[in-house]
Amino acid sequence: MGIGRVLNAELCGAPAGPANLITDVPGVMVGHVTLVSGEGDHAVRTGVTAVVPPGDCFVDKLPAAACVSNGFGKSMGLVQVRELGSLETPILLTNTLSCGSCFEALVRHALDGHPAIGVTTSTVNPVVLECNDGPINDIRALSVTPEHGLDAIRGASSTFEEGAIGAGTGMTCFGLKGGIGSASRTVDVDGRRFVVGVLCLTNFGSLECLRVAGASVGRELARRAGNGVPAGAARDSGSIVTVLATDLPADSRQLGRMARRVTVGIARCGGYVGNGSGEIVVAFSTANRISHWAAEDGTGTPAIDRVDRLSDNVMDDCFRAVAAASEDAIVSSLLHARTTTGRTGRPTPGLRDAALAAEIGLPVGAGED
Amino acid sequence: MGIGRVLNAELCGAPAGPANLITDVPGVMVGHVTLVSGEGDHAVRTGVTAVVPPGDCFVDKLPAAACVSNGFGKSMGLVQVRELGSLETPILLTNTLSCGSCFEALVRHALDGHPAIGVTTSTVNPVVLECNDGPINDIRALSVTPEHGLDAIRGASSTFEEGAIGAGTGMTCFGLKGGIGSASRTVDVDGRRFVVGVLCLTNFGSLECLRVAGASVGRELARRAGNGVPAGAARDSGSIVTVLATDLPADSRQLGRMARRVTVGIARCGGYVGNGSGEIVVAFSTANRISHWAAEDGTGTPAIDRVDRLSDNVMDDCFRAVAAASEDAIVSSLLHARTTTGRTGRPTPGLRDAALAAEIGLPVGAGED
Amino acid sequence: MGIGRVLNAELCGAPAGPANLITDVPGVMVGHVTLVSGEGDHAVRTGVTAVVPPGDCFVDKLPAAACVSNGFGKSMGLVQVRELGSLETPILLTNTLSCGSCFEALVRHALDGHPAIGVTTSTVNPVVLECNDGPINDIRALSVTPEHGLDAIRGASSTFEEGAIGAGTGMTCFGLKGGIGSASRTVDVDGRRFVVGVLCLTNFGSLECLRVAGASVGRELARRAGNGVPAGAARDSGSIVTVLATDLPADSRQLGRMARRVTVGIARCGGYVGNGSGEIVVAFSTANRISHWAAEDGTGTPAIDRVDRLSDNVMDDCFRAVAAASEDAIVSSLLHARTTTGRTGRPTPGLRDAALAAEIGLPVGAGED
Amino acid sequence: MGIGRVLNAELCGAPAGPANLITDVPGVMVGHVTLVSGEGDHAVRTGVTAVVPPGDCFVDKLPAAACVSNGFGKSMGLVQVRELGSLETPILLTNTLSCGSCFEALVRHALDGHPAIGVTTSTVNPVVLECNDGPINDIRALSVTPEHGLDAIRGASSTFEEGAIGAGTGMTCFGLKGGIGSASRTVDVDGRRFVVGVLCLTNFGSLECLRVAGASVGRELARRAGNGVPAGAARDSGSIVTVLATDLPADSRQLGRMARRVTVGIARCGGYVGNGSGEIVVAFSTANRISHWAAEDGTGTPAIDRVDRLSDNVMDDCFRAVAAASEDAIVSSLLHARTTTGRTGRPTPGLRDAALAAEIGLPVGAGED
Repeated sequence: MGIGRVLNAELCGAPAGPANLITDVPGVMVGHVTLVSGEGDHAVRTGVTAVVPPGDCFVDKLPAAACVSNGFGKSMGLVQVRELGSLETPILLTNTLSCGSCFEALVRHALDGHPAIGVTTSTVNPVVLECNDGPINDIRALSVTPEHGLDAIRGASSTFEEGAIGAGTGMTCFGLKGGIGSASRTVDVDGRRFVVGVLCLTNFGSLECLRVAGASVGRELARRAGNGVPAGAARDSGSIVTVLATDLPADSRQLGRMARRVTVGIARCGGYVGNGSGEIVVAFSTANRISHWAAEDGTGTPAIDRVDRLSDNVMDDCFRAVAAASEDAIVSSLLHARTTTGRTGRPTPGLRDAALAAEIGLPVGAGED
Repeated sequence: MGIGRVLNAELCGAPAGPANLITDVPGVMVGHVTLVSGEGDHAVRTGVTAVVPPGDCFVDKLPAAACVSNGFGKSMGLVQVRELGSLETPILLTNTLSCGSCFEALVRHALDGHPAIGVTTSTVNPVVLECNDGPINDIRALSVTPEHGLDAIRGASSTFEEGAIGAGTGMTCFGLKGGIGSASRTVDVDGRRFVVGVLCLTNFGSLECLRVAGASVGRELARRAGNGVPAGAARDSGSIVTVLATDLPADSRQLGRMARRVTVGIARCGGYVGNGSGEIVVAFSTANRISHWAAEDGTGTPAIDRVDRLSDNVMDDCFRAVAAASEDAIVSSLLHARTTTGRTGRPTPGLRDAALAAEIGLPVGAGED
Repeated sequence: MGIGRVLNAELCGAPAGPANLITDVPGVMVGHVTLVSGEGDHAVRTGVTAVVPPGDCFVDKLPAAACVSNGFGKSMGLVQVRELGSLETPILLTNTLSCGSCFEALVRHALDGHPAIGVTTSTVNPVVLECNDGPINDIRALSVTPEHGLDAIRGASSTFEEGAIGAGTGMTCFGLKGGIGSASRTVDVDGRRFVVGVLCLTNFGSLECLRVAGASVGRELARRAGNGVPAGAARDSGSIVTVLATDLPADSRQLGRMARRVTVGIARCGGYVGNGSGEIVVAFSTANRISHWAAEDGTGTPAIDRVDRLSDNVMDDCFRAVAAASEDAIVSSLLHARTTTGRTGRPTPGLRDAALAAEIGLPVGAGED
Repeated sequence: MGIGRVLNAELCGAPAGPANLITDVPGVMVGHVTLVSGEGDHAVRTGVTAVVPPGDCFVDKLPAAACVSNGFGKSMGLVQVRELGSLETPILLTNTLSCGSCFEALVRHALDGHPAIGVTTSTVNPVVLECNDGPINDIRALSVTPEHGLDAIRGASSTFEEGAIGAGTGMTCFGLKGGIGSASRTVDVDGRRFVVGVLCLTNFGSLECLRVAGASVGRELARRAGNGVPAGAARDSGSIVTVLATDLPADSRQLGRMARRVTVGIARCGGYVGNGSGEIVVAFSTANRISHWAAEDGTGTPAIDRVDRLSDNVMDDCFRAVAAASEDAIVSSLLHARTTTGRTGRPTPGLRDAALAAEIGLPVGAGED
């Protein structure tokens, strides 16, 4: 959590939330299912991570938006999120080829909870995000099942681990071990304190470009390569997908604007939004829930209700919070991810291990936990 | 107004507003400046039409959206309307090459009313829509001045003329005389009656495709061509720009969804959104005004206020209203536009004149006024 | 096929291709898997339809685009199609909740044919389109398996059936039985003849709005309801998804422009792009294939090659072809779909059966087959 | 030019072009008109900058794209650039309220050169970009005339000045004097060398966020404020608009992808794409010109021609070049801009002057010229 304070002081001025995690947004929970088995060509190093908003997402949908900074990705559900500006399921993150399983997990989750779906009311829009863990995981094995997705949802909690876990188990970031990272920032509006939380699945970047709190840590590591430090992939070929949550009463358009600032955090860490990167953000607000039953006959729920509206004049504070939390979350994914050996038999070092091997110090704060 | 009732019964079921005009939306006003002078190569047949929302648009902005069905057009201000979801000036319509003059008119209008602009507060985003009246008007003469734009705003009223007037003076539609057309439809939500109003500047379509209330009027006219009836342009080379106004508490996203249904009305009339067409819609709501001064120091205006929110579950009624009003407005532009002779010396016949010459009857209702 | 000639003469002037089907585009094939079993609550009336481009889509990708007219839909793969402007799998159409199975079918199809995927090269982007067949099919049963998707691909052929078959088995359109419809139009450019083909999965519209070749067939049917004619759903609550294929050398941007004209055909039939409609088009060209291996080390495939480029100046002909083919395909889906009884036990009448029951004649040509 | 080499080595590895300017792209020229007069409230500190592509843009249009990272801006012409993927005029940059004058300048420029416009052929789409120089310039004076825009075009040359000149005369960037900055990077494809050039008009950022080649120069300056060093604006309230030029045979979609990487350069310098920022990029290629007369009767120009096509597989090199050139161009604007006193009577210091006053050294290379 030290790194959070460092990046915060450096870049934003706004304090992180109490845990510096996306779960600082009240009611938001995160769950992981981690699949690790086998070695060599058949090494399974993958999983599912669920971000679960509070309450019943289908009945009381959440204002939401999707942002595609680079669309080399297979994420699901974005079309409807954009049209209706709402989210009606938990969000599952997994490896690229397992999106179908996670789609089915979310379908089953919705069907189980809502007997009316497909009978007397509409269907449901599952949201799935993904990165390609093929360099470490035997992605062709299609190891993730719908049941894994359901388990990740069921296991969600307000405390959770970061690093090489859940969907992050097999991910690679800046040539180092990537995975799940999270952070939060607070934003004060009209004397009330709100939280912006970010959870990233990091799988992008080339080592030489990595910056930690402004320092050229990646270049330094690359320079000392050989000493247990990896050479670093020449290409920024992976992806980063991000879930952004807030309790600010932001509407879909404003959530979209906030989501687009995740790229600022990515660029600060040394990413340049590569050709092969799926850089996708789904953002939601826990305020101003949207009733599925509005204006439906027999429900008595009116078509017009009253909600809080946030002025765009305070967006700068929100944007700074998103940029800082995104940078922080990416670095956090690196700091938490332990060295992992997968499909190739060659270890992908965690940042801490690489720094130790290279005998360099990480920026102040980045060494604590 | 007869046509309004006909199209309405046929296609929507919802009644038109009291005047079947965009000004049925309370407070919305329309003004024209018409420029007619000269003959032959130097025939000036152009003008400006202003759609003026109620109140001070800069201080109390309006929720707004822009839709580009086909972007062969030079309209101004759409980028900011989309980002911020708001409108802060009246909307001016004119010929393609006069957009610069109308931009300056809106700048001057804002500067005159607001000494703080450019000094202690931000600048202003003028919204200008255009069609190319070159086939009738000597568009190269750049006849429109900023003063004309200001006059159109100053002259705005809740009653106004349609047809070959204002920005519509030199427009051609389905090979006939086009111009300004307007219509409205009512939408009932939660027991309250709201209005959706449309104003089009019609300058698109080829004669043979024209349908009036479903009838192949254009084909019939084309068949009898020679008898004072024009042969009809082979190409659908012009544009149609539309202003959509409503007092429904729709937000920017919902206004964008409504704006996208204008194309349905265009297609019903026989348009196919041609390559050279600028088919652009700007939509705004007079509900839920947005304070320029929100969260600004010293104003005491909070960053968060309370507003009405409309459920997307009633969007179907809104969409039907937009489609019907758009179809009605296009036909209305044709019914009101009188035969006009411009740059080429060859008259462009009004639909009524063409129908008389061809000895065909227009669909029931279309003959009344 | 009679209806094709009628609509063609009426609306476009361009002749249909030899079979008036999407498979008139050389090399394009279509396959169906139809699932019909059970009765009442457990009636399975669903399936999969595959549109299979010629050749190896993964190695020689196709220029492609996606258009979302209304995004109340769960279609998959659009994000990457838009970013890269290419298609690298066949396209599967199915019911809403079976998208996950079809995603997995396309993954397996790609993995089987390409051992390098996920090992030495990137992953694959499956494209799946869907409509909700819940009113007829027990969609909650999740009857479609990945194997069904693979069977649809394997069974693809240049001749195929339309109507209540494959993905169309349980669809409802204008309150009548909908399903799969297809049509084509030819476009002449520089003295060469090209084809634009359309395949729709129709599941939208309310009966009273239906127009066939301009005639208010739906209103007439609704008027005579009771006589075996259904009352017609009040709401336009379903969707229509469309695949557009051509051998024109159109690039991604131009394919996107063409795709956006499908809405014109929909509006001509009486649709207004309802709130709950997923109106989505995926368009591809079989010209100018894109090598997966371009600029990859060791392949010798250069990064720059030479291709044909189409001028936007001939887009009007392409747009008219798309609008006409789309209208024709929608009507064709209705004309081919036989009366079907599903989940509710109440038959959904085919258009021909409904017309017979109502004793009305369909427009000339629409009665033939 | 020293800074160019520094940033280059740091971030990209690709060498800059010979002059490290946008004019390294063969045939591209830049011209300025600078307006400086008066003092105090009536201080005119503004101008126009023209980016002029080689040849006749109207007859032989250029593949082009537009990217809006944040749309708080009034730029003109983007709608058509996006629809048709082409540019047909020079690009003018100026202050926000003078866009109308520059629109008219481009109209006149096109009319003068092409008598057919508005008579026998279509109109023209002027492209104008803007930032708000109100803090230094009396922007309400509307000092820019169409003639100034024409002069900027006429005066364009392959060598040009950067800094507080032309449209950059009154701009503020990171609380320091901003303005015009330019840079280039080379990209090697298939053994041929291409150039990516960038020209920015910088008017964004708050001092404390400024980074030069990774170093926290802005924070250091802010820390020593008082010693002739400005306190720095708290808000990132301005804009940055960018023109991107290349001789790579990139199509509109690819140019759009490249344009979206300008944000990476902005973020590296410390920007976070603020709420009030118009962050807009127009990109064009000088390869694969598009004939206005294609498929037009009587011209003999075919509708289909042959062009080079670039694989997206080499986009990473292009993206790195864009990110590096953008960062370099922003820093270059700061290094070249001299301290300027405008409307408020308070000097806005140039970066060199501020660094001298604060007695800090700029990163290696940044001190040379």
